[in-house]
Amino acid sequence: MSKYPSHLIRLIESLRRLPGVGARTAERFAFHLLTWPGEKLKDLGETIGSALDKISFCSECGCMQTEEKCPYCTSPTRDQQTLCIIHSPKDAFAIEETHQYSGLYHVLGSLLSPVDQFDEGALPIQEVRARIEKLGIKEVIIALDSTLEADATALFLKEELAPLGAKLSRLAYGIPIGSTLDFVDGGTLSRAFSGRGQL
Amino acid sequence: MSKYPSHLIRLIESLRRLPGVGARTAERFAFHLLTWPGEKLKDLGETIGSALDKISFCSECGCMQTEEKCPYCTSPTRDQQTLCIIHSPKDAFAIEETHQYSGLYHVLGSLLSPVDQFDEGALPIQEVRARIEKLGIKEVIIALDSTLEADATALFLKEELAPLGAKLSRLAYGIPIGSTLDFVDGGTLSRAFSGRGQL
Repeated sequence: MSKYPSHLIRLIESLRRLPGVGARTAERFAFHLLTWPGEKLKDLGETIGSALDKISFCSECGCMQTEEKCPYCTSPTRDQQTLCIIHSPKDAFAIEETHQYSGLYHVLGSLLSPVDQFDEGALPIQEVRARIEKLGIKEVIIALDSTLEADATALFLKEELAPLGAKLSRLAYGIPIGSTLDFVDGGTLSRAFSGRGQL
Repeated sequence: MSKYPSHLIRLIESLRRLPGVGARTAERFAFHLLTWPGEKLKDLGETIGSALDKISFCSECGCMQTEEKCPYCTSPTRDQQTLCIIHSPKDAFAIEETHQYSGLYHVLGSLLSPVDQFDEGALPIQEVRARIEKLGIKEVIIALDSTLEADATALFLKEELAPLGAKLSRLAYGIPIGSTLDFVDGGTLSRAFSGRGQL
């Protein structure tokens, strides 16, 4: 890659930091960008560069704001006594799409990683505790992924939040809707068995 | 997606224009970018926006310049009587890596597309002709992909350039090195047969 002009190398290196983008894809992106008209390229640069100025996050719950207002914290029609703990602001959009939930959210921002050493200080546990107490939350729903990191984090949250007295629950894990048993992996099937419900 | 803030939608739509990036991947990129520190994000925006100002192309051959100088056209040690016709500036880097070629290049910038109607005006055929005559080129090597568009373009170039008297050649097509016959598609095998050489 050292054969490329220095700015091109810089562009490729920057694009490589996107999730799932390796050296080859970053090169492809960079050469493709160079075929764009200058105006569109400047526009993309501007859109990316100003993203954090234009998109703001709620200081209370960490969700993405619409027109500088949190659509969840400031809504009078939402259930103020249920708190859903999520990993990233994106998850709130996915949960809203289900129309199954109308309570509040709290974004963790990171998960505990058993591989990279547990960094419990990175979790906003004090903020979550304070909100539960301030709002008199009755139920805390832990809506995290089904990964090693999410499991470790859920366990940690359970230990930390149990003394507050609110009901703690976690999303159900099992066979995805529309899936057949032969395509479900062993771990999922095992979770579906242990979590089986009465018919 | 209409549920997202407007700037986020704009960011996602822009990222979707990268090659091979669909709605899902663009969303993933956008949400990932929003977790970057503001400084790095501005830096990426700046790198993309200024790419066409910082990276320049040779007005003679269309290749990418290093420090505002074409590394091919201005090199006194390169063979000035062989011209290699390529699709994009990127191809020159790939060919240089082989250390098999030390002549000049000419970038077409586009190919004839039998699907989108042949647009022969988009090819810099006058410029190629003028260079062949000016430099007294002895051999023109057509180094294009092995696709329908590249084949159509090669055929067109052959017709246009044959009257100039320079030798015309095209890259060999056949079985990739290290490949086994069972993994080679029928088209490739057929080309390898018809192009077989004496042992």
